[in-house]
Amino acid sequence: MIKVGIIGSTGYAGQELVRLLLQHKEAEIVWYGSRSYVDKKYADVFRNMFRLVDAKCLDDDMEALADAADVIFTATPQGLCASIVNEEVLKKTRIIDLSADFRIKDVATYEKWYGIEHVSPQFIDEAVYGLCEINREKVKGARLIANPGCYPTCSTLSIYPLAKAGLIDMGTLVIDAKSGTSGAGRSAKVDNLYCEVNENIKAYGVATHRHTPEIEEQLSYASGEKVLLNFTPHLVPMNRGILITAYATLKKPVTYEEVKKIYDDCYKDEYFVRVLEKNVCPETRWVEGSNFVDVNFRIDERTNRVIMMGAMDNLVKGAAGQAIQNMNLMFGLPENMGLELVPMFP
Amino acid sequence: MIKVGIIGSTGYAGQELVRLLLQHKEAEIVWYGSRSYVDKKYADVFRNMFRLVDAKCLDDDMEALADAADVIFTATPQGLCASIVNEEVLKKTRIIDLSADFRIKDVATYEKWYGIEHVSPQFIDEAVYGLCEINREKVKGARLIANPGCYPTCSTLSIYPLAKAGLIDMGTLVIDAKSGTSGAGRSAKVDNLYCEVNENIKAYGVATHRHTPEIEEQLSYASGEKVLLNFTPHLVPMNRGILITAYATLKKPVTYEEVKKIYDDCYKDEYFVRVLEKNVCPETRWVEGSNFVDVNFRIDERTNRVIMMGAMDNLVKGAAGQAIQNMNLMFGLPENMGLELVPMFP
Amino acid sequence: MIKVGIIGSTGYAGQELVRLLLQHKEAEIVWYGSRSYVDKKYADVFRNMFRLVDAKCLDDDMEALADAADVIFTATPQGLCASIVNEEVLKKTRIIDLSADFRIKDVATYEKWYGIEHVSPQFIDEAVYGLCEINREKVKGARLIANPGCYPTCSTLSIYPLAKAGLIDMGTLVIDAKSGTSGAGRSAKVDNLYCEVNENIKAYGVATHRHTPEIEEQLSYASGEKVLLNFTPHLVPMNRGILITAYATLKKPVTYEEVKKIYDDCYKDEYFVRVLEKNVCPETRWVEGSNFVDVNFRIDERTNRVIMMGAMDNLVKGAAGQAIQNMNLMFGLPENMGLELVPMFP
Amino acid sequence: MIKVGIIGSTGYAGQELVRLLLQHKEAEIVWYGSRSYVDKKYADVFRNMFRLVDAKCLDDDMEALADAADVIFTATPQGLCASIVNEEVLKKTRIIDLSADFRIKDVATYEKWYGIEHVSPQFIDEAVYGLCEINREKVKGARLIANPGCYPTCSTLSIYPLAKAGLIDMGTLVIDAKSGTSGAGRSAKVDNLYCEVNENIKAYGVATHRHTPEIEEQLSYASGEKVLLNFTPHLVPMNRGILITAYATLKKPVTYEEVKKIYDDCYKDEYFVRVLEKNVCPETRWVEGSNFVDVNFRIDERTNRVIMMGAMDNLVKGAAGQAIQNMNLMFGLPENMGLELVPMFP
Repeated sequence: MIKVGIIGSTGYAGQELVRLLLQHKEAEIVWYGSRSYVDKKYADVFRNMFRLVDAKCLDDDMEALADAADVIFTATPQGLCASIVNEEVLKKTRIIDLSADFRIKDVATYEKWYGIEHVSPQFIDEAVYGLCEINREKVKGARLIANPGCYPTCSTLSIYPLAKAGLIDMGTLVIDAKSGTSGAGRSAKVDNLYCEVNENIKAYGVATHRHTPEIEEQLSYASGEKVLLNFTPHLVPMNRGILITAYATLKKPVTYEEVKKIYDDCYKDEYFVRVLEKNVCPETRWVEGSNFVDVNFRIDERTNRVIMMGAMDNLVKGAAGQAIQNMNLMFGLPENMGLELVPMFP
Repeated sequence: MIKVGIIGSTGYAGQELVRLLLQHKEAEIVWYGSRSYVDKKYADVFRNMFRLVDAKCLDDDMEALADAADVIFTATPQGLCASIVNEEVLKKTRIIDLSADFRIKDVATYEKWYGIEHVSPQFIDEAVYGLCEINREKVKGARLIANPGCYPTCSTLSIYPLAKAGLIDMGTLVIDAKSGTSGAGRSAKVDNLYCEVNENIKAYGVATHRHTPEIEEQLSYASGEKVLLNFTPHLVPMNRGILITAYATLKKPVTYEEVKKIYDDCYKDEYFVRVLEKNVCPETRWVEGSNFVDVNFRIDERTNRVIMMGAMDNLVKGAAGQAIQNMNLMFGLPENMGLELVPMFP
Repeated sequence: MIKVGIIGSTGYAGQELVRLLLQHKEAEIVWYGSRSYVDKKYADVFRNMFRLVDAKCLDDDMEALADAADVIFTATPQGLCASIVNEEVLKKTRIIDLSADFRIKDVATYEKWYGIEHVSPQFIDEAVYGLCEINREKVKGARLIANPGCYPTCSTLSIYPLAKAGLIDMGTLVIDAKSGTSGAGRSAKVDNLYCEVNENIKAYGVATHRHTPEIEEQLSYASGEKVLLNFTPHLVPMNRGILITAYATLKKPVTYEEVKKIYDDCYKDEYFVRVLEKNVCPETRWVEGSNFVDVNFRIDERTNRVIMMGAMDNLVKGAAGQAIQNMNLMFGLPENMGLELVPMFP
Repeated sequence: MIKVGIIGSTGYAGQELVRLLLQHKEAEIVWYGSRSYVDKKYADVFRNMFRLVDAKCLDDDMEALADAADVIFTATPQGLCASIVNEEVLKKTRIIDLSADFRIKDVATYEKWYGIEHVSPQFIDEAVYGLCEINREKVKGARLIANPGCYPTCSTLSIYPLAKAGLIDMGTLVIDAKSGTSGAGRSAKVDNLYCEVNENIKAYGVATHRHTPEIEEQLSYASGEKVLLNFTPHLVPMNRGILITAYATLKKPVTYEEVKKIYDDCYKDEYFVRVLEKNVCPETRWVEGSNFVDVNFRIDERTNRVIMMGAMDNLVKGAAGQAIQNMNLMFGLPENMGLELVPMFP
């Protein structure tokens, strides 16, 4: 039984970790960390957990936590994980960081986009970017996982096959993304009130969203060239779900079958990536509550572009589910243990 | 492994049965029945099932189905189950009927409220009303289960303890209920279009809703007297969830602790009924996706009334989950097998 | 042209006042008061007002405001209006208070339910309860209007005819109310975040909601007896709209036609109250954006109860629209000037 | 007083025409056409109109209608307007067609994208594309107006200034659009049921949506070159609103101020187009219920692209409001008569 500690267990991603881990037969949560709710019963914060979780929220105490847990999930704002990781901790336990601290290999890029100083740059090299479908083998041996961002996960998995195959002109890539509101977090802000979000759609972080360099870095690895792209997220009045619609010019004419084969070959052994059938568009309702990413594409011969699409649950494959997928790999368990979740509809 | 057949697998309740049974380790679906989608791949109707279900939808063929299945779930409009049940079928298999055909013991009452003739009244006596928390022992030996309606499940479980204890004046009982829209079914009607339901709340079936006599019958058993009550359902712009708010005059002054003890005693051994803590109101968000019913009450000394409240997921405890709970009991499995679902929030 | 000042113009009710007054041809807003956004452009707080409102938000300055405005709307938390009203102010201008400060005639009742001391009890007698349909003549001459609460407006207008007619046993009255989330205000609270409200319904303030004594007082006037009732509000995932469903025992058997005539007689000259046709239930979608209240009833012969229903827009007839209706009466304008709004659907 | 006839008055756009025309002081609706609801009271189809509209729905009778009306709005499926227009009708009355029949000047293009034969191609030349901000003078003298599509209105107005100025490489243009569900119409389809749309986002009509050639044609006029572009609409769980996010490569480096000046110059005299302030993104909540289009842009120096954005209410500026704007121009009324609607929030 893996002993799990969670720092930041009272955010939406933290709570999703709890939901999934309670249903994971080889994991046991031993630490419900939450600075905001210290000493409060966890089930009083999230009443879905009534009778299921008896524990109280604990303040951060890295020494005690490192002793108690085989693995620590940090579902916290940027900077927290970087501030607590050190050699001593990593000798005792492993860390799966759901924040962005170790996702970007270039410190300067991180500091520029996030506007904070990185206090543990010495661990960036060691950290493995935990997109299991791409970095599976490295994940297995890792002590420190940088769990990918929600938008980067969906964007990268949707575009990766064609970037890797060299089929698209990476300089033309535009990613238009849409997310449910749980991605905005659980802190009390006027902009996230029900009446502000409901009956509204808006773009935000246009040309400045922090997930941009993360996506660029991953697609640079895939394509073998430095990628600059446009990424525009939008806030959608729904709880969960991310949809990305990506546009790129094809380097040469291709048929549907050729492109389909590239996707199929790339993901034929993947449990969590579902390449949809011809002309079926990914929709968030078909993945909600699960760790699946549904991807598909459409070729537009008129404009010589390919439109690549992906849908997933931002809290599962985009956060907690992927983190557990990483945990499973690190601890030698079947990759989909506890994650064989049938999407819940409606 | 229990072989399961589903008639009406392409409605919302039918699909929920599929979702839950796919995650049930002792059940296997061998028959996806659907008159509307015969020969269509099930996963083309519900794309969440892509890669998870390979089967096609089948037309009704009771003989073949009775041979193939250990248990048949009928998630169909009223009248269908009554039209197919017979001694021969019941000798081969068991039936859990999610429609109202066998819920009401008095044929005349059924025919009056439902406006159709009952074609198999001879099985009404045998049928067991599958509210497991009340009729557990009878369920175990049953061949034919009348799976309770969504509103009656939530209403009965919320009111039952005080009705049973003789604490409330049953003649004063008023039940005001609110339901998400999946309860209205998946057929194409203008009234259920997104733009008609969204940003709206309405009462419907005022003083005429068919679940009224079902609730009255169950509460009559509990209280030992003939009960007539008002039941008013409302349609709420959300996918899932039922909340009931019930009002009754107390027969005598009681303290919070006395009433709390009655609830606790009644449900102390129940996994699926959660009696909440003082002053905590049930909310549908805390039970969504699970088989839990959260109940609580509040005494108003000013008016000498008790307000009883209950929340549950209409598709789980109100339909598919309860049906599987019945199946588990009938087949000697742990009652909560496949139903230890942590509510999904948000 | 009436010069209007608004204190609390950056809440939802305050903003609705602005929306409606901008379309009122005899009113002009001269003061956009907001403690939270002093010196900020109003159109930067509510961007729907871009190009329509040029003004900046002003801090409270009662002296300047009383000089500048012919009428002041206070759309503020309880206590504010009571703290600023005095004889000097009322000599210069009139006040329409959207808070509860002057709604309840009995100071002790106010102080008990609201938990604050009333600092201007000497004006309670003079204040007119601004439910125009009931108190029209008194409103015309008033200096100080207590604009009714949203729930009390909908509840009172739905029940008033039968209370007045002596047709119902007031001791049996139960009001189950449902409201959109704009009623919860625009302050940043976790409970009002999109993901907490969406896909949820809950009761709140059970047996303790502050609108209870206000409704009781008004229905006491109507029925001529002291009324105690149960009032339970629920939070619904929608922006606007209130629906109330009220239950009472009939004192004697009555026909549909008899009750219909009572409603029709009561409201035959009212522009804003629409008595619906037989068996048509009020729905919030049909009144959204307008000052209408749709009311209807249903008799249940089985239980000898009448179910009374009402729907309205909580921000219009429940707040800003009714306040302007009061203003129109006070200034001798046609009562529906600026309020002939066709409900916006969908 | 302009006498108005509406064919197709019981769709969402038709009903919005009614809502707006009832509040227009120089127009009077004399004909509520609806094939689906012949002889039914209009207010029984849309109960918001109770007491406001007394008329019954009428079947199509072009002769009677042409005699009765000064202007006819056809809010109908494609093909209907083309089938009824003829010289005789146009001598008696004017037509504002909300369908696509006369929007596209090239018949072959129309027939290819819409898949139907055009039965009145002889009127295509005469028909004026009713985007008032671009074709104001032609609209004034027109007998037959092709009222623009919802997506084309928002797309064209957002991109027009830069296309006209020759600032962007038209070959790189990608339009990613998002719409509320009222755009999908009021016919009963499973895909538009509440539970299918709620908690979901999806792209549809990828590379094949019929509004594509309409946008291309308008932007070709603006840029003086033949334009081919990608247009991808998405369905968003909300009632009203369209947001478009468009991407294009800049032909040369430009400053924010230069681009802002182009937009400002283009729209400085327009009442309905609001060019927002720096870094403010258009959001549908700020235009709901009004005829405004909010536009803005953002330059991304990293990728040398400009992101152009626009938001509007699909039923107002995208349909009924724009149609009335055209009517106002055709009849010599102030362009914004009846359309000075303050956006309704929340």
